[in-house]
Amino acid sequence: MEPLILHEYARSGNCYKIRLTAAHVGARLERREYDIMQGETRTPDFLARINGNGRIPVLQVGDRYLPESNAVCWFLATGTDLIPRDPFDQADVLRWMFWEQYNHEPNVATLRFWFGWIGEENFSEFQRAALPLKRAAGLDALKLMDDHLATREFLVAGRFGIADIVLYPYTHTCEEGGYRLADYPAVAAWLDRVAAQPGHVPM
Amino acid sequence: MEPLILHEYARSGNCYKIRLTAAHVGARLERREYDIMQGETRTPDFLARINGNGRIPVLQVGDRYLPESNAVCWFLATGTDLIPRDPFDQADVLRWMFWEQYNHEPNVATLRFWFGWIGEENFSEFQRAALPLKRAAGLDALKLMDDHLATREFLVAGRFGIADIVLYPYTHTCEEGGYRLADYPAVAAWLDRVAAQPGHVPM
Repeated sequence: MEPLILHEYARSGNCYKIRLTAAHVGARLERREYDIMQGETRTPDFLARINGNGRIPVLQVGDRYLPESNAVCWFLATGTDLIPRDPFDQADVLRWMFWEQYNHEPNVATLRFWFGWIGEENFSEFQRAALPLKRAAGLDALKLMDDHLATREFLVAGRFGIADIVLYPYTHTCEEGGYRLADYPAVAAWLDRVAAQPGHVPM
Repeated sequence: MEPLILHEYARSGNCYKIRLTAAHVGARLERREYDIMQGETRTPDFLARINGNGRIPVLQVGDRYLPESNAVCWFLATGTDLIPRDPFDQADVLRWMFWEQYNHEPNVATLRFWFGWIGEENFSEFQRAALPLKRAAGLDALKLMDDHLATREFLVAGRFGIADIVLYPYTHTCEEGGYRLADYPAVAAWLDRVAAQPGHVPM
């Protein structure tokens, strides 16, 4: 395979999910760090060459660039047991991955970023108005996972896979955004199972 | 294949993208309509049986339920020419599908909904604070598509596929949210190419 270069900000859960997938499939990643707080992913060169969307992570595969964390995880896991072969189960994996980006990350991860990187005293008018809505949507997301995992070992088809990998990073750091894992015992037990998988690497 | 039942709200672009995929692959869908403005997707029965997330669309496949519009499009398109076989191209399709749900739909589709269903005079404090940010993020999304399509016929690998299908619904209705297609000539030409595909069905 061509050399793989991960353009990343290491403390981002979206970047960690790629390193976690790579660890599980045995892919070697060269890592390039960008300071998102200094605008290093919004420079003209980054926008023109790496990602016009101005975001990390991006996986560079030879001279091609793949943005979107979950697409990168899919790419690295293609052909491995982390993606089920059955068409419905495969789509169900993607269901959780799309749900992660629409319902979980914009709430659970965003509050982690707002509280941990920006600070409540610096919140904008928008952030103050959005906070209760994002808080509630994040609670709903964690509750949905907890209900689902109350009767299951892993998210899809009874086995560990990339749906679990992409939901692990921002779930295991949810307390940094003000959520309480003790309120979600099935989620907490699932986090332990994910972290106990052979090949697991910490954030 | 087992009977396919689409639980939907027909005016939702997320539901239309599924009907459009089904039309292109020749899948027959039985359709069940829910009035989202009357809370018909938040009833105890809907939440317990169809989707704990309280959202449409959901594809029912026999006695199994698949939420998330883009996961459903993937399921229907599995094994067809709408999904490329090459692993990088396949991940690049998913890159646009994840981008659609993170950067395009929450802005372009949300403003269509806010202006067309809620009405500016009824906006909440949050909506008033969020409007300029969502407006700008939608402009960025349409600009990103326009730049990409300026030198390409379709989004991925030079051929029509589900990345084009999932981005068509909310892009071709973007003016309902206050965006101007005339500002994005490459997008407008791409919309015409998508609508000219054999098998296309209108919203």
